Amino acid sequence: MKNFPIVKSRRLRSTPYTDRVEAQGVTGYTVYNHMLLPVSFKSIESDYEHLKKFVQVWDVAAERQVQISGKDSAELVQLMTCRDLSKSQVGKCYYAPLIDDQANLVNDPIINKLADDKWWLSIADSDVIFFAKGLAAGNKFDVEITEPNVNILAVQGPLSDNLMAKIFGEEIRQLKFFNFKYYEFKGNKYFIARSGWSKQSGFEIYVEENKAGQDLFDYLFEYGKEFNVKAGCPNLIERIESALLSYGNDFDNRDNPFEANFDKFVNLESNVNFLGKEKLKKIKQNGIKRKLMGVKIDHNKIDMYCEKTLYDDDNNVVGQVRSAAYSPTFKKVIGIAMINKPYWDAKHQFKIDINEKIFLGTVCDLPFI
Amino acid sequence: MKNFPIVKSRRLRSTPYTDRVEAQGVTGYTVYNHMLLPVSFKSIESDYEHLKKFVQVWDVAAERQVQISGKDSAELVQLMTCRDLSKSQVGKCYYAPLIDDQANLVNDPIINKLADDKWWLSIADSDVIFFAKGLAAGNKFDVEITEPNVNILAVQGPLSDNLMAKIFGEEIRQLKFFNFKYYEFKGNKYFIARSGWSKQSGFEIYVEENKAGQDLFDYLFEYGKEFNVKAGCPNLIERIESALLSYGNDFDNRDNPFEANFDKFVNLESNVNFLGKEKLKKIKQNGIKRKLMGVKIDHNKIDMYCEKTLYDDDNNVVGQVRSAAYSPTFKKVIGIAMINKPYWDAKHQFKIDINEKIFLGTVCDLPFI
Repeated sequence: MKNFPIVKSRRLRSTPYTDRVEAQGVTGYTVYNHMLLPVSFKSIESDYEHLKKFVQVWDVAAERQVQISGKDSAELVQLMTCRDLSKSQVGKCYYAPLIDDQANLVNDPIINKLADDKWWLSIADSDVIFFAKGLAAGNKFDVEITEPNVNILAVQGPLSDNLMAKIFGEEIRQLKFFNFKYYEFKGNKYFIARSGWSKQSGFEIYVEENKAGQDLFDYLFEYGKEFNVKAGCPNLIERIESALLSYGNDFDNRDNPFEANFDKFVNLESNVNFLGKEKLKKIKQNGIKRKLMGVKIDHNKIDMYCEKTLYDDDNNVVGQVRSAAYSPTFKKVIGIAMINKPYWDAKHQFKIDINEKIFLGTVCDLPFI
Repeated sequence: MKNFPIVKSRRLRSTPYTDRVEAQGVTGYTVYNHMLLPVSFKSIESDYEHLKKFVQVWDVAAERQVQISGKDSAELVQLMTCRDLSKSQVGKCYYAPLIDDQANLVNDPIINKLADDKWWLSIADSDVIFFAKGLAAGNKFDVEITEPNVNILAVQGPLSDNLMAKIFGEEIRQLKFFNFKYYEFKGNKYFIARSGWSKQSGFEIYVEENKAGQDLFDYLFEYGKEFNVKAGCPNLIERIESALLSYGNDFDNRDNPFEANFDKFVNLESNVNFLGKEKLKKIKQNGIKRKLMGVKIDHNKIDMYCEKTLYDDDNNVVGQVRSAAYSPTFKKVIGIAMINKPYWDAKHQFKIDINEKIFLGTVCDLPFI
C-alpha cells in the first residue's frame, strides 16, 4: 500500500501535544473527530512490543468530550444509550453504546458522570454533539451541550502504575478500573481515570488546561526514563488482540448493538427510556443474522483500507473482515469480522483474497487473548 | 511543515474512484466526512493554473449526501436551516447554512430538492445525519434519514461545458447554475447539477451506481484529451480567491451565520420555523462583534494547520486568519480571517508571525476576485 501525505489544515485540528508528538517521532496519522491522532512511532509492530512491556504516553486528544449539563441532562444521556444508567454513580465511567431510533449504532463512548447534572461523553469518531443537540432541541430539554477544551493524555502499559505513582503519589495505585478522581501535581489538578484503549492497564488524564497538559507531557518523559517510557498511540495489533472495537472500522451506523456483541450493555428489561428500545426488542425477538467474530488467517501481512469479503468452499459469502493486522503473538493475521449466521460458530473455515492470492482462515471467538 | 503519511483504514473510507485517483498521481489527502479527499496532484500551484485554463475531473465523493424523505421531510429540512425554503422548487439546488438552537453553524450544505418529500443535503465536513436523526426523533417526525451510496464526480474548469457536451450532448449547456437534471450516457442515467466548489464553472455528477461512476471517470479522461483534461480536486488557492468557505476551516460550531457573512441566507422575516430563529433575531438586534473578511499578507508562503492571530501596532488582537495560501495572481499570501469589529473595515493593517518572523498585512473585502 503506497503512502500518501496528510495535508494539514485548521479543519484537521492539531492537539496541544502535536509539536511534542512530532518531536517524539510520530510516523503516521489518522483523523479522528476532525483531529490528528497518531497511528505509529517506530513501527506498529515495534510499538506493540514496547506497549506490552513498558509504559507509553499517548496523545489521544482526538477522544473529544461532549459535555451535557443541566436539569434534563440525565434524561438526555439515558435517551441516547441502551445501557441502563439509572444506578450510575458520580466518579465512575460507563462504556455505553449510543443508538438511534432505528437501533443502529451512533458511537460507543465512555460516559463519565461528573455530577448528577453533568456528564462527559468521551467519544469515538462521530459527531455525537449534533445528535445530542438535535435530540435536546426536539425534546425541548433544559440542557447545555458543549465540546469543552479537554485533551486526553493516556499513560498505558504494565509500568503505567509505577510512572503515575511517581508523579501523582502512591494513592493513585488504589484508583479502581473505570473510576476517576482529581489528582494534583505541581499546583495543577488533573482529572484522571483508570481506563484506556489498551488492555495493558493504564490511565487517561483528561487535561483541562493546555499548558498544564504540555508540562505534564514533558514530566511524564522526564520521570519515566527509568521505566523506559516512550511515545505511543492506540496500537492496531494490541487493540485487535484485545477485541477493543473501533466505531467506523468494526461497526457503524448500519449495525445494531447485538450484531456488535454489545449484549451486556443492552438493558431491555429496565424501566429507563431510550431511543430504539422497541426496535431493539423486535430485533432480539427475531434474532440477528450476523455478528462480530474473530478471524485468524494463515498469512503474515494485510493492509486494510476497506472491508474484505470472506468465502466458503462453494464461494458463498461467510462475512467481511473489517480490521486486521499481523499478530506476532499468534504468528497469523488476526482480524475482527462481521460473520453471517450459518458461519459464526467458531472454527468455521473460509477463503480470503489478499493482493490477488487466496489464503485460508478460521472464524474464532473474541477476544483473542 | 514536515509531511506525515495518512494511515488508511476502513474508517477513513476510500471512494469508488480512489484507485483511479491514485493512478492519476494524487500527492496528498485530507479526510472529509470520514472519507479520503484528494488535496493535490502535481502541486497546489500547478493544479490551480490548470484549473483556471482547462478542465479537471475531481473525486469529491466525500461530499456525502444526507437523504431525508417522507411526509415530514420538508418540515425537518426547514427546521435545520435559516434560509427560507418555502418557495423551493424540485430540480433546484439551495446553498443553505444549517444552525443549531444556539444559532451556531452546524454545516453549509447544498440542499437538492428531488421531490416535495425527498431531499439530498450535500454536506460539508460534519455528521449532519445525526443532527437530523436527533431532531426527527425528538420531534417525532415521519421521515426516513439515510446516507445513500452517492459518490460525486465534479467536472470543473472553463472547458467543462465542452467536455460535458461531448459526452452528454449539447443540451447540457442549457443547464442553469444550481439546477440539476438527469442525463444519459451509454445506457446509464446520471444526476447532474451545474455547481461545484470552484468559480471556474462546472458540474457535479451525483453518481448512484459505482460501476457507472468508474466507467464515466475513464470516459471523461478519454473524451477530455482534446481539452487537456487532468485529475484535480478542490483547490486551496482558487477557493480562497473565490471566497468559497470551508466548514471547520473558516467557520465552525462556535460561529453564527452573520459572523460567517451568510446574511443573504438568513430569512428572519419569513414565516417558516427553524431552529435558533429567536436567538438569531437577538444576535441581529445586538449586532455582531466579529466577521469573516479577507486578508492580504506581504509574504510568499504560509502553512496553515491552526489559526494564526493578527495584531495591530499596539499588539491588540485584530483577529485570526483561518485559511490562507500564496496567490500567484496577487503575488501575496491571501486568507480568510475572523476579524474583530473595530478592525473589520477594509484596508486596516496588521502584523502576523509566520515561522517566527513578523509580516505585514491588510484586511480586505471578500471575495478577492
